[in-house]
Formats: sequence, C-alpha cells, structure tokens
Amino acid sequence: MKPSLTTETVRLDEQTKELVLIDQTKLPGEYTLLRLSKAEDIWEAIVHLRVRGAPAIGVAAAIGLYVVTDRFQTQDRGEFDQQFRAAKEYFASSRPTAVNLFWALDRMAQVVQRNPQATTDRLKTLLRDEAIAIQREDVDVCRRLGEYGLSLLQDGDGILTHCNAGQLATVKYGTALAPIHLGVQRGMHFHVYTDETRPLLQGIRLSAFEMQAAGVKTTVLCDNMASSVMQRGWVQAVLVGCDRVAANGDTANKIGTSGVAILANYYHIPFYVVAPTSTIDLTCPSGTAIPIEQRPPEEVTHMWYEASMAPAGVDVYNPAFDVTDHSLITAIVTEYGIAYPPYDKSLAALCSSSTE
Amino acid sequence: MKPSLTTETVRLDEQTKELVLIDQTKLPGEYTLLRLSKAEDIWEAIVHLRVRGAPAIGVAAAIGLYVVTDRFQTQDRGEFDQQFRAAKEYFASSRPTAVNLFWALDRMAQVVQRNPQATTDRLKTLLRDEAIAIQREDVDVCRRLGEYGLSLLQDGDGILTHCNAGQLATVKYGTALAPIHLGVQRGMHFHVYTDETRPLLQGIRLSAFEMQAAGVKTTVLCDNMASSVMQRGWVQAVLVGCDRVAANGDTANKIGTSGVAILANYYHIPFYVVAPTSTIDLTCPSGTAIPIEQRPPEEVTHMWYEASMAPAGVDVYNPAFDVTDHSLITAIVTEYGIAYPPYDKSLAALCSSSTE
Repeated sequence: MKPSLTTETVRLDEQTKELVLIDQTKLPGEYTLLRLSKAEDIWEAIVHLRVRGAPAIGVAAAIGLYVVTDRFQTQDRGEFDQQFRAAKEYFASSRPTAVNLFWALDRMAQVVQRNPQATTDRLKTLLRDEAIAIQREDVDVCRRLGEYGLSLLQDGDGILTHCNAGQLATVKYGTALAPIHLGVQRGMHFHVYTDETRPLLQGIRLSAFEMQAAGVKTTVLCDNMASSVMQRGWVQAVLVGCDRVAANGDTANKIGTSGVAILANYYHIPFYVVAPTSTIDLTCPSGTAIPIEQRPPEEVTHMWYEASMAPAGVDVYNPAFDVTDHSLITAIVTEYGIAYPPYDKSLAALCSSSTE
Repeated sequence: MKPSLTTETVRLDEQTKELVLIDQTKLPGEYTLLRLSKAEDIWEAIVHLRVRGAPAIGVAAAIGLYVVTDRFQTQDRGEFDQQFRAAKEYFASSRPTAVNLFWALDRMAQVVQRNPQATTDRLKTLLRDEAIAIQREDVDVCRRLGEYGLSLLQDGDGILTHCNAGQLATVKYGTALAPIHLGVQRGMHFHVYTDETRPLLQGIRLSAFEMQAAGVKTTVLCDNMASSVMQRGWVQAVLVGCDRVAANGDTANKIGTSGVAILANYYHIPFYVVAPTSTIDLTCPSGTAIPIEQRPPEEVTHMWYEASMAPAGVDVYNPAFDVTDHSLITAIVTEYGIAYPPYDKSLAALCSSSTE
C-alpha cells in the first residue's frame, strides 16, 4: 500500500466548520482524518497525541477554539465571553507545557478582548479569521524555512534526519523537512535517511511515512546505524529541527541529535538546524542553561515486549532532549535567513531584523 | 526481583554427563538452566540462540558432542566413529557461519583421529577431557583479557559498553566485560552504562542483566543517548568486544560501535577494544576488506508492535556490523597483552609472540 498525505496536517473545513486532523496515533499503519467540533473530542485529540508537534498543536487549539465557539447558542456578549473563557481554559489544560498552545489560545483571546462592542456573530467571524491567520502563518513560516534550506542542498543529495520535524509536526512543509518537500515539488530528487529515533520512534513511524507519501526515496535505520550510513558516503547533509536555540547557537533538540552532529562533524558532512525564530531564545546564554526533561523509564524498557525487555529494577536514563554544541552546527536556517557562525552575532542580527 | 547469574554460561555436569546452559532467550525476565543430553535438544538450543556468542557456541558444541557420544551403546570403533561423524555433521549444520563452532567440533574430531587404537570407553574419556579443556581455555583467555583490561581502569570509573561481549557470550567473565567482573571480585566499584543495542537489544537484555547479577551499578540507555551520557562527564572509558580485527587495527563489531568510538574520541574518552587473538586476522589488511552481513528488515521494522512500526514497503538499512577506524581506538586488549598504535606493528608483534 502506497502511503498518502493528502491534506494539511491541521485545517479548518470552512463549510462544515470542523477541525480536520490527521490522526497520528494511527500512523504509519492507517491514514485516518478526524473531523472534530466538540470541545471534549478536541481536548482528547491533543492529550492523546493524535495531533503532535508544537506548531501543529497551536494551530489545532486555535481552530478548535473557533469551531467550539461558533456553536455557542447565546447572542449575549457577557454569556458568550464567559463560555469562551471556559473553553479556552479547558483547552489550555490539555498539554500544560506546550508553549505554542498557550500562545495560540492567547491570540484568540485577544480578539475577544480587542472587540468589546462586537456582536457575537461578528466575533465568531473575527475568531474564524484569526484561526485561519494562525494556520496560514504557520504554512508561510515553514515555506520560507524551506526556501532558505533548499538553497543549501543539491539535487540528488542524500539527507539524514532525526525524529520528525516535518509536515506532521506543523500544518504543511514542516521545519527540517520543508526543504525536501519544496524541492520535490520543483522536481528535485533526494534520498532521505530517517533515524528511527528511540524511544518513541517518531523517525521510523512519522518521518518515513511523510517522506514516502511525498514520493521521496526513503531508507529507515536504527539510530546506531547513522555512522555506518555516513561512512559509506551516502549522506551529503543532515537536517534537524529544534526545540530551543540559545544565544550562542547551542541547540536543544530530540535526544540523539548531538550524537548525529558529532558524527556529521567527523565525516565532514554539513549539519543544519532548521529553526523558526520563535524557537530562538536570546535570553538563554548557552545550552547549559536549557533544562532537559527526563521522561518515564517505561518508554525505554517496555516498548517491545509485554514483559520488560530490561532486567527488573534497572536504572534507566531517558532524557527527552540533548544539547548540540554550536561549534558542531554548520548553519541555522530561519524564516528570515540563514545564520552562520559566530552565532552570538548572527542570531541577534536575524532576530532584530525580524522584529523591525 | 534481584537477577542472579549463579553458574558458568556453558558447562559440563560431570556427574550426570549433561550439557548445562543458561537459556538466554528467557533473559532478562526468567533465569532458566537447561540440562541437555540429546543431540536434537542441543542442536535446537544453538539454532534458537538459547546459547549465543561465538565462544559460548563453540564450547556448547564441544561439550554437546561429548555428552551425545558418551551415550553411544556400541563398543565397535568403526560403528562408533561413524556415529561420531554423523553427530558432528549434525551439530555443524546448526549455525553455518559460526567459526568457533567448526573450530571446536574439529578439535573434538581430531581426538578421534589421533587415537585410532583406543577403545570406545577410552575415547569417551579423551573426548570428555578435550571438551573440558576447550571450556577451561575459554575461561582462561577471558580471565587474562580481564587482567589486562583492568590495568586500564580506575576504581569508581563510569564505563560505557555496547551490545553484549560479557560472560553470557563466553563461559565466564566475557571479553569486553571481563575487566568489570574481575574488578568487582576484587572489591572495586564501577558504574556501567549499557547501550540498548538495536535492533536485537543485546545490551539492555543481556549486558544489563549480567551486570546487575554481578552486583554492578548499571544504567541502561537508548543508543542515541550515549552522547548525552558522555557530555555529562559520566563515562571514563568505553569497553567493546569485536568480531574481527584487521592487520591495521580497524575493527568490525556490532553495528553502532563505530559511532560510539567517534563520540568517545570527540569527548576525549579512551575507547578500548577487547579482542582475543583468535579474532585478529593479519591476512585482512584493513576494515574495507571485512564483509558486512546485511540482516532482514523485519528486525528493524517489526519488533515493537504486532503491526509494522514503519510504513509498508519502506527501504530498511540493517547491517549487523560496522567498522571502527583504527585511529579512533585507544588500545586493543588481548590475552597476551595490550596493543597500542601503530597497530600494524603492535598487533603483528603480539600475534607472533603468542604462537612462539
């Protein structure tokens, strides 16, 4: 069966006023679209990772808040605003550490605050427009990341990626995988090598699905095989996403990324971080200041077998992220341009130009 | 439940004349000893990896051939020799690429050939002695590997290892883990970090079990977390086994080893290969001449879920081994001493002294 990825990961059906999502818990085995309009169903979809990836979660929450609000019966503004706040708080409780979630819900709330005189019908229109704007901005940022990233690649390149920083984590294009999607649309050919990305397998489950669906030649490998693939000369560039970039260019991303960067450095392969400026934190001086979440040991020890695959009671190290030293990063690709070393200067310059 | 490892991995019960094995397919959940004396049961144990690791397989085959032979009813040498050859061929068919298996069976066959006048009773005694000698030589080689390896470690060191080159792959002590076992017997303390070792998980299943059973502080991690552990300064040395060492010191070992070596090099951590001289192949000039076995894609794609965790039809890269460049290896520990760079000279010197 050929996989397909026929729609944006998260979108509004303007006819039926439903939130439409790809159910990522079913991938790669099944491609299922969910059509949601009840608050409980949308909350459940976020909690149970049917939608994942910080940008995609933010957009889903914004569209979700609109479709729920649109079904409010009342035409009384006081009552409307009260119901709106309750729905917003309910969505905010779904994933308490997701920054994009709060950011998107706050943007929606500002529409209500900024228009105290609007009728409820008018407010529904404004909220729809804001949700669509948030969704389109995400597509626009990712398309621009793709343009800049593509300028660093050659037709025919072998590209290694880690985790899923692709369309499935955003609305369209993705971050790290945006250059691939854009290049393929223009008739270019790449061979993408996806690390499986233990413990949660986002690479083999999601990136491999997404690349195959886009018609890209795709090879999956266990994380410990990346050195072998690079040694054979099959990889011309590494593309990864990121969770946070410090002012000096140190980058936190999915566990394993720093190892891939060290391998790329050893084999003289360029290592590119693709980072929307929203992930650059100039208040954070270096990677040592980035807190690293430790996750439950069962993710490591209980995934394969019903019984544990590790001896009972063994200590488990399971960090969600690691920090890649800026000296290992060839360039950081943003939607406003490409930053090169020294990053303390280039990142500050990019961020100030982006806010002008 | 505290794991235990109360016996040698493979041994002869001289009272009952049975081959006694730890059933490794049951680890780490269950610790089961098998007592075998029928040819079919011994063959099955080798084929289904109840015993694994080249040295352990060789010893199991030698003891297995003895216990089967000991039960022959005939006192006619012609008939005895014919039954012996049939049993030997049957065992040789169990794992067709296992060099130690053939080597051990040939040593047993030479006992029969060298003693054409011996009675069948006398021959049974000689075969028992040869099987015990093969088993004890394995213990002796591993103990000596442990002595030399231990001279490179400090009490309190954090040690990272990959795959299982421990007692469970040999009779006792192991190769890469021999210095740990020996040090612990002498009251030293280590903290061992075991890569899980995808795709077949020998690290998290076997090395972690073995280290815990020996009372060693043990932490398991996914392969892609090794960089993070090293970055935190928790690792003072890496110990790995090997499958083949070329004349220039390039080393083939379990897939992922070369990546660990590159990380160790980056973090300035010594990287030691522990290699019985039987694995040094002076006729092989460098790692590029070592053939690398490709294994079935299902090992990568079908281990976690009943359904595939990868999109249908995706290409899979699944090499069993990779080659670590000699420039990344701090020292190669053998049972005759420690080889340092330049390896083309030091390995040749060690091998010639060992055969004098």
